[in-house]
Amino acid sequence: MSHLFFIKSFDNTVFSETESGHLIRVLRKQVGDRIEVTDGKGHYAQGIITEAHPKKCAFSIESMETHSSPFPYTIHLAIAPPKSSDRLEWMLEKLMEIGITEITFLITEHSERKNINIDKLQSICIAAIKQSKQFFLPILHPPTSWNDFVKNRKETQRYIAYLSPEPLPHLATLAQPKGSILLCIGPEGDFSSIEIKDAMEQQWTPVSLGPSILRTETAGFFAVNVIHLTHVWQSSK
Amino acid sequence: MSHLFFIKSFDNTVFSETESGHLIRVLRKQVGDRIEVTDGKGHYAQGIITEAHPKKCAFSIESMETHSSPFPYTIHLAIAPPKSSDRLEWMLEKLMEIGITEITFLITEHSERKNINIDKLQSICIAAIKQSKQFFLPILHPPTSWNDFVKNRKETQRYIAYLSPEPLPHLATLAQPKGSILLCIGPEGDFSSIEIKDAMEQQWTPVSLGPSILRTETAGFFAVNVIHLTHVWQSSK
Repeated sequence: MSHLFFIKSFDNTVFSETESGHLIRVLRKQVGDRIEVTDGKGHYAQGIITEAHPKKCAFSIESMETHSSPFPYTIHLAIAPPKSSDRLEWMLEKLMEIGITEITFLITEHSERKNINIDKLQSICIAAIKQSKQFFLPILHPPTSWNDFVKNRKETQRYIAYLSPEPLPHLATLAQPKGSILLCIGPEGDFSSIEIKDAMEQQWTPVSLGPSILRTETAGFFAVNVIHLTHVWQSSK
Repeated sequence: MSHLFFIKSFDNTVFSETESGHLIRVLRKQVGDRIEVTDGKGHYAQGIITEAHPKKCAFSIESMETHSSPFPYTIHLAIAPPKSSDRLEWMLEKLMEIGITEITFLITEHSERKNINIDKLQSICIAAIKQSKQFFLPILHPPTSWNDFVKNRKETQRYIAYLSPEPLPHLATLAQPKGSILLCIGPEGDFSSIEIKDAMEQQWTPVSLGPSILRTETAGFFAVNVIHLTHVWQSSK
C-alpha cells in the first residue's frame, strides 16, 4: 500500500519533524523516491524526495491535483467536549470517517471539561486523512467560551440541540444540505437556560435529536449523520 | 436518582447473583424497600423487597406496566465484529443509546474475529438499559456462521452493505421504516464474492452507505441511524 504524507502548505516543501521521521527513519525513504502528499485543503501532489533528512525531509512537486469537497455544504460542529478523552477521540475518529468541515470545543456553564489537547486531536485527524486518503483536514478550533462563540455567527443555518420541556422539531425535518451549517451540542448537563436564551436572541433554531437521550459524543456524531443523510435523500428525489 | 433493576422474567421474582449483590451489598437495600424493575421485554414493575439476600434477593410485585416499543419496526443488525473489543463495546453502547432490536455477530470468510464474550456484551446492554431507564433489551445472538445465517431469513426487508465496483443505491433511498428490517455489515475485508452471491440468491438488497469507506463498527451504527432517520422524515411529511 502506498502512503499519503501530510504537509501544512505546499509553499514550503519541507516536512514537519514527525512526518520526516516517519518518512526517513521508519519507511527508510531516500533521495529520488516518489511520494504522495496532501495539505488537507483539497490539494494532492506527487513529488520526489530531494533531501532525506530525518527531521526536515524536503521534496519537489512533480504534479498537483486540486480536489473539491465531496459535499455541497459545510458542517461546523460546536460541542462541549465529553469528560472522557477516549470518548472525545472516538468522536473525532468517527467524524473524520463520515466527513466534517470544522469543529469548535465549547466551554459552557455546565461543561465538565475545559482543557483539550488540540495538538493530539490534530494528530489524530492527520493520521485519519492519511489512512483513508482524504484530501480535506477539518479545522479544529481551541476551546472557546460560549459567550465568545454565540455572537454574530456567519453560518447560514444555525441549530442548537437541547432537552426541552416542550417538544422541538427534529433536526432532520429542518436542516437543508446546502450553504454553511452550524450544529451546536451541549455538555452532559445540557445548556443552561441563559445559554439557550442567548442562542434564541441570535436567531438560532432549537432542535431535537429524537426520543432517546444521547451522550454528548453520540449526539455530535448523530447530528452530522443527519445532514449527510438529508443530502442523500434530497439527491435521490 | 432512583435505580432500575433487571430481572430475566417476572415469573421468578428473585434477582440474579450480580443484581442481588448490587441491591444488598452496594446499595444496602432492606426488606420492605421499594424498587423499580424491568425484564427488558417492555415490562416495568414497582416492587418491594421481601428477602434481602446478597446472592438471591427476592421481591414482590406491587404494580406492573407494559410498554410498547418506541419504534414501529424492528431492526436486526448482523455484523462481522471488529477485531478490537473496545470498538465492539463502543458500537454496542451507541446502538443501545439509539435503539436496536436484535444483533447477530457473523463469522464470515474474511472475519478477523470469531470469538465474542456474549456474557460481557450482555452485561453492557443490561447496564445501559438500567442507566437510561429503557424497558427493552436487544437480543444478542452468539457468533453465527455466514452459511447458517444467510438462509431463509424471516425479515421482510433484507439489506447487505458492501463495497461494489458498480455504484449501489444508498440504504437511505430504499429502506422503509416498517416491518422487520435486517441490516448486514461485513468485516474490514468486506464480504467475499461468494457471500455476496449467497445474499443475492436469497433476494437480499445490495446497498451502499455513502461515499466514505467506514470502519465496520461505524457502518453498523450509521446503518441503524439511517432507519431511525427515515422514520423521522416520513413521519414529518
